[in-house]
Amino acid sequence: MSRPNIQLGREGGLKHFLTIDGFSRSLLTDILDTAESFTGVSERTVKKVPLLRGKVICNLFFENSTRTRTTFEVAAKRLSADVLNLNISTSATAKGESLLDTLRNLEAMHVDMFVVRHTDSGAAHFIAQHADPHVSVINAGDGRHAHPTQAMLDMFTIRRHKGEFTGLRVAIVGDVLHSRVARSQILALNTLGTSEVRVIAPRTLLPAEVRTLGVHAFHDLEQGIRDVDVIIMLRLQKERMRGALLPSEHEYFQLYGLTEERLGGAKADAIVMHPGPINRGVEIDSQVADGPRSVILQQVSFGIAVRMAVMSMALGNQAQGAVR
Amino acid sequence: MSRPNIQLGREGGLKHFLTIDGFSRSLLTDILDTAESFTGVSERTVKKVPLLRGKVICNLFFENSTRTRTTFEVAAKRLSADVLNLNISTSATAKGESLLDTLRNLEAMHVDMFVVRHTDSGAAHFIAQHADPHVSVINAGDGRHAHPTQAMLDMFTIRRHKGEFTGLRVAIVGDVLHSRVARSQILALNTLGTSEVRVIAPRTLLPAEVRTLGVHAFHDLEQGIRDVDVIIMLRLQKERMRGALLPSEHEYFQLYGLTEERLGGAKADAIVMHPGPINRGVEIDSQVADGPRSVILQQVSFGIAVRMAVMSMALGNQAQGAVR
Amino acid sequence: MSRPNIQLGREGGLKHFLTIDGFSRSLLTDILDTAESFTGVSERTVKKVPLLRGKVICNLFFENSTRTRTTFEVAAKRLSADVLNLNISTSATAKGESLLDTLRNLEAMHVDMFVVRHTDSGAAHFIAQHADPHVSVINAGDGRHAHPTQAMLDMFTIRRHKGEFTGLRVAIVGDVLHSRVARSQILALNTLGTSEVRVIAPRTLLPAEVRTLGVHAFHDLEQGIRDVDVIIMLRLQKERMRGALLPSEHEYFQLYGLTEERLGGAKADAIVMHPGPINRGVEIDSQVADGPRSVILQQVSFGIAVRMAVMSMALGNQAQGAVR
Repeated sequence: MSRPNIQLGREGGLKHFLTIDGFSRSLLTDILDTAESFTGVSERTVKKVPLLRGKVICNLFFENSTRTRTTFEVAAKRLSADVLNLNISTSATAKGESLLDTLRNLEAMHVDMFVVRHTDSGAAHFIAQHADPHVSVINAGDGRHAHPTQAMLDMFTIRRHKGEFTGLRVAIVGDVLHSRVARSQILALNTLGTSEVRVIAPRTLLPAEVRTLGVHAFHDLEQGIRDVDVIIMLRLQKERMRGALLPSEHEYFQLYGLTEERLGGAKADAIVMHPGPINRGVEIDSQVADGPRSVILQQVSFGIAVRMAVMSMALGNQAQGAVR
Repeated sequence: MSRPNIQLGREGGLKHFLTIDGFSRSLLTDILDTAESFTGVSERTVKKVPLLRGKVICNLFFENSTRTRTTFEVAAKRLSADVLNLNISTSATAKGESLLDTLRNLEAMHVDMFVVRHTDSGAAHFIAQHADPHVSVINAGDGRHAHPTQAMLDMFTIRRHKGEFTGLRVAIVGDVLHSRVARSQILALNTLGTSEVRVIAPRTLLPAEVRTLGVHAFHDLEQGIRDVDVIIMLRLQKERMRGALLPSEHEYFQLYGLTEERLGGAKADAIVMHPGPINRGVEIDSQVADGPRSVILQQVSFGIAVRMAVMSMALGNQAQGAVR
Repeated sequence: MSRPNIQLGREGGLKHFLTIDGFSRSLLTDILDTAESFTGVSERTVKKVPLLRGKVICNLFFENSTRTRTTFEVAAKRLSADVLNLNISTSATAKGESLLDTLRNLEAMHVDMFVVRHTDSGAAHFIAQHADPHVSVINAGDGRHAHPTQAMLDMFTIRRHKGEFTGLRVAIVGDVLHSRVARSQILALNTLGTSEVRVIAPRTLLPAEVRTLGVHAFHDLEQGIRDVDVIIMLRLQKERMRGALLPSEHEYFQLYGLTEERLGGAKADAIVMHPGPINRGVEIDSQVADGPRSVILQQVSFGIAVRMAVMSMALGNQAQGAVR
């Protein structure tokens, strides 16, 4: 690494969390270990730790997502931080203020962390590059680029069920082309030493550069799913149907929808994951989504612990033993 | 009671608060007694008790109501809980996620309580039936069905002013047909042993089954109000005017609006109540609403204490002496 | 002062903060001194003091402003208060409830303070006049009338840089006619003993009564700016362009936009201020806004401390030494 990683602080600890790209296996493992120490907090009677008391965490959402915002809000409050929810599309920019001016103003109020969601790829990087040194930035999804906390909660879920990444065969199924989640998952899986990462999608929904990603591409679901340990279904954005990229929802389900029958081709103890919200009967059958192999709701629970880990590490208040 | 009451926990304590129906006089009295112990909190310098510290209470509003949401938010914060405000109409359902999937996701984040407001009768029941055992559900108004915390704050207000329910004559005036508040009030008044409950309304605004409710129906305000101890005015939904159910607002006020003069027919110490927001000059004259017999604003204050009582009882953190 | 000042409590301390008008130099100085004691809080690891724990502060915004609301929310949370955010245009008034009924309801919930923003001049006064004795009201901007916390943070910024107001020459540049900020600044500057206050604007953007305000009016920027210590640029509301009041944005910038070159006419150590959000290239050049003389972002930081001061003084929990 000749170019210093903007995501790391002076002493090599986590500063921003923008993308999985550039992080070492050991740092990703630190995040998972720190998250492990937080899973207990959600089950206590008093579900709070005072790690971030007095810190102000600002959910800066340029793209509306109640669901994602809520997970960060719950994680922040569990760490005893104060939370500001700002939906920017409806406020400052309406008055013609530039993104940087909005940022500078919030920094001047001594906000400690921005959790950024934006429709443009690179928005969180842009903010981190221009942010004051005392501020941390967490990417909560930027365009088609990355959604690293989602990927890390997926890694956490896999590790909980499978222990090691080495030896695992993981399949990601669906609209890889448009998915920031898939991009982040592939990077994390490879960094953590997963033996084989497969992507399964119609040609129209795979990026041209798919081979450079370190994955095996399949266009047939049954073939791709054979003997895998983990199946990660992607959400199908229904707006893709309008363009020429896809046939009907019905036809998509016929070809790429995960059913009990198809799940039979995977390993007997394979787990099924999905970042949510799920489209029942489009990319996944309800029988599978609600079945014994599904760990979809565990992903949500672990997501709180993983976000607590990332937030507390970035603000330098690591739970004991975290961050080398 | 052959069928177990979904609202009660294993040991007979309050678990959900969905409707007055099925609750014993002693449980309703417990709620009122617990609320009594909380009335002092709002008058302290530090208006907080740590009973629900670390609990997450989620206002799940499918029907917008800043006013009601605010009362629950204030009550929750006074108990030191963390509050999530979710306006569902504008978020998850827009992405096509089902109600149950939304619910499961929030449960997975270890939310402890849902305060539910919905335009459909039965929505809070549905959620309680499908909720995880660790979660409590409070109905903050569902369609035309019930609004039990409103009814309990009304009972609290009556008890504060009149002491006992036995011996009381209470009149409910207005659009009983469409009112979830009236349904809950009638049940509560009867369970608590009120001597006589009257409803006063035009025939078009009384439910067909009015006689089975244990009330005396009147169509004439002056007749119905005679010698009552308590007058509860209902809010007239202005949208009813559009249909054929009602004459004009002006004509409604002529027939059913509460004026000083008409109030003279009630007992000399009768109190006047209204769930708010009031329509001045439609169902109630300003002179009465702001007059010495009106306890409308006390209802709001007591509403905080009653909601604190219900929330803390349902989450098993009763103030001392509460819940048998 | 024959008429008692509604803004002062029984013992002469701050009760409401509605306008600078009527406040003594010593009270304004007390606010600045109290704010001084709070500036350190924002730089601590735990950025909180428990002064207003258990108090409920309600942001009652009839005019949307995420930016201003956020500054009050941050200040309130730093004082450990609970915050309710109510956007009134979209709630109670939609149900036809009057402003006073909304107010009475919130008071009945034992809200301690209203931070009011309204498009009508006088709205905050109206609320303070009708509010319950236990409630304090802070004006966060009412029509064209006043924005006193903005003016006080400006005074704080000037005092930090210049020490004394005596001997200072301050110029306010731009749309004075429509600016509640300018009205409050002029009052504060004069009360604090500023030697000379200038306003610089085209004739169409100066109020007719400009001479009675105790200022010197200039229509030429270069002339007006000569030898000043402080330049306060006002935001140009772009909607003014539509009327006949102003030429184009471009022409405005030619005549009244602050550039590096024009700044050369002021004192060598003159500071440049702006209430934000700035219109780059309309009233101010980016080189100036981001340059070494600009204290625009410091204004935002100091704004938190000043709002903490006003809130804690009004609620009678002054930091030590504050309020005579």
